[in-house]
Amino acid sequence: MAIIVKKFGGTSVGNIDLIRNIAHKLSGEYHKGEGLVLVVSAMAKTTDELFSLAYGISSHPSRRELDMLLTAGERISMSLLSLALMEEGIPSISFTGSQSGIITDEKHGNARILKVNAFRIQEELAKGKVVIVAGFQGVSTSKEITTLGRGGSDTSAVALACYLKANKCEIYTDVDGVYTADPKLVEKPKLLKYISPELMLTLCYNGSKVLHPRAVEYAIKYGVEVEVKSSFTFAPGSLITRNLPKKSEEEEMEERKVTAIAHKDFLLRYILPVNDEVLRMLQQWIYEIYKSFINEGIWEFFIENKYEKEVDYFLQEKGIKPIHKDNNFAFVNLVGLGLGNDPAFLASLLENCKDFQILRSFNNEQSVELLLPSPNLTPAIKTLHKIYIEDSQ
Amino acid sequence: MAIIVKKFGGTSVGNIDLIRNIAHKLSGEYHKGEGLVLVVSAMAKTTDELFSLAYGISSHPSRRELDMLLTAGERISMSLLSLALMEEGIPSISFTGSQSGIITDEKHGNARILKVNAFRIQEELAKGKVVIVAGFQGVSTSKEITTLGRGGSDTSAVALACYLKANKCEIYTDVDGVYTADPKLVEKPKLLKYISPELMLTLCYNGSKVLHPRAVEYAIKYGVEVEVKSSFTFAPGSLITRNLPKKSEEEEMEERKVTAIAHKDFLLRYILPVNDEVLRMLQQWIYEIYKSFINEGIWEFFIENKYEKEVDYFLQEKGIKPIHKDNNFAFVNLVGLGLGNDPAFLASLLENCKDFQILRSFNNEQSVELLLPSPNLTPAIKTLHKIYIEDSQ
Repeated sequence: MAIIVKKFGGTSVGNIDLIRNIAHKLSGEYHKGEGLVLVVSAMAKTTDELFSLAYGISSHPSRRELDMLLTAGERISMSLLSLALMEEGIPSISFTGSQSGIITDEKHGNARILKVNAFRIQEELAKGKVVIVAGFQGVSTSKEITTLGRGGSDTSAVALACYLKANKCEIYTDVDGVYTADPKLVEKPKLLKYISPELMLTLCYNGSKVLHPRAVEYAIKYGVEVEVKSSFTFAPGSLITRNLPKKSEEEEMEERKVTAIAHKDFLLRYILPVNDEVLRMLQQWIYEIYKSFINEGIWEFFIENKYEKEVDYFLQEKGIKPIHKDNNFAFVNLVGLGLGNDPAFLASLLENCKDFQILRSFNNEQSVELLLPSPNLTPAIKTLHKIYIEDSQ
Repeated sequence: MAIIVKKFGGTSVGNIDLIRNIAHKLSGEYHKGEGLVLVVSAMAKTTDELFSLAYGISSHPSRRELDMLLTAGERISMSLLSLALMEEGIPSISFTGSQSGIITDEKHGNARILKVNAFRIQEELAKGKVVIVAGFQGVSTSKEITTLGRGGSDTSAVALACYLKANKCEIYTDVDGVYTADPKLVEKPKLLKYISPELMLTLCYNGSKVLHPRAVEYAIKYGVEVEVKSSFTFAPGSLITRNLPKKSEEEEMEERKVTAIAHKDFLLRYILPVNDEVLRMLQQWIYEIYKSFINEGIWEFFIENKYEKEVDYFLQEKGIKPIHKDNNFAFVNLVGLGLGNDPAFLASLLENCKDFQILRSFNNEQSVELLLPSPNLTPAIKTLHKIYIEDSQ
């Protein structure tokens, strides 16, 4: 039996009507005889509501109890989707992370999947049922409830696809796929029909929110083909694959040096004295350090503003005073194969950026990163997208 | 270590402020060195909200998926209470029904507890932690999530108290304890300081909502002493115990024949042909058949109006047409030791009820039940409470 794993994010299952719409659209695919495994996130808003309850009680809630709280979210969405499928006449069953056999380490709030024992899923698929799995959650070997951190449902989906030897893992979301840049910022965004997993990983690490980097890492590691597509239309989206189409089919693919532009805004910079213990602890504890550089005895890192309280609390608890802390930084990341190794491109890039106060630039094989003040971010993306993508086709 | 199991119902943990209040009040008891196990229900409204989501999708949702959905509720309340205790400086940990070792049969929606393997609770108590347990839920031997039906959290609490050999099981609720009648209906309701478990059971079966009958059955079976008290004041409430105070202490205890008056309103009556299979199935499936009589080939039973759709759906599915179905019945139940065996009392009772159109009366050792039309219920209770309780002291 061909198995397809489909993941539906929080906005895709945000209310009863959306859930019913998904169930209806799935009924066609079910009757084709494919084995369907649906991984769901909590309904949009639920997670935020649960967070605000927890922070209403404690400014630094226990991670273990937070995991217990947050995992209530997927129980709600998965059982509702199961009921909606039954209404369409499709037999279905929902499983928690634990029942699905998603075994993780003990790191609450940011657990890693150690193994997948999905025999219950396989048993139910064999009975002809659609199996719905709670994304984002797992169970540790000591039977503690864990969560996989941000984007954890993507990771659950790819891990299950790998374990079940699925033909494909489809990530349904509230956009049509992966664009060349944030469609809200640029004039003529283009949907990428295909992208290599390595370039996708770079995009994801640098602000593209359609997929979580860890899920892409899994997809690369286990060779799972992932498609990002719309949960409203179910239309073809962006395929993340090593089997890129030949040049004759998609002429412009190799013509354009810059495949896409990612960005991250509203970053806060900390500069601390280098200290191995703190480095280790903070990196373990704050799972969203965006960029981190060590140079001449100081450690400089960037985080999103929303983590400020958490980081400050941690540093205070450990008795560490930052050397410096400032605000309003942004990164623009141009992503494309071989980009960082092309001196002519780098020269043209810096020339085209002369109005944007580039504070630093970093390059590697497939991306160039530019650090700049937040207010210059939007004009920089608009300009660079026009020059390197719109005008290069 | 003296262990006390305390159960907090949905209205007691209905919002963050209430949860914080409970945590604050508990801190005094914790520091006395008692082992505290807290059983919590879902926050008031949460269960209703979850039900309405499910019924928004399906008019007859799968019980298995409904259990999955509803058990999200206690996860939320228990983790929040745990966080609130930590804020008070009290170490605590929350456990799901499964983690607590509450093993049930497979009957979704109305599972029975088969055994309790609460070793994890004991381990955490030994470490000095307050242990919070999700009420209402358990796990079947095949690892399916189950719920214990209405009032299930009370049952969880009493079952745990029994297993842990607790000194006491306290049921915290939004009233001060058990009253002689519904305080909203009668002029001078009296709080019962003590009541025997057998009389309490009769009250609970007949409409007293402070405790679930199954929990009282457990308490009787395993000899657990239960106190019903206010979660707002923590003041002494009603003790359900076989060790009733001696007459000299509570003179009026034995003077009064009628201990309390319970009632149940807005009942719907079905009359069906007797059919063993239907009888068995319906009694298994509808867990809230209030009264049921078999007589001369017909089966007559009463349910609350809210179950009408469910019952009609079931009967239709089984191809059974009721002989008769009518509405607006009520029962008044006078409860007191030896009540049903006292002909003088019965005569006086019927005389005092002559204005209330008593349709039938039933008596047993410790209660007399009167069936009457709904509109006569309130005047009947007022009158009987005045005569047999207020004026008998």
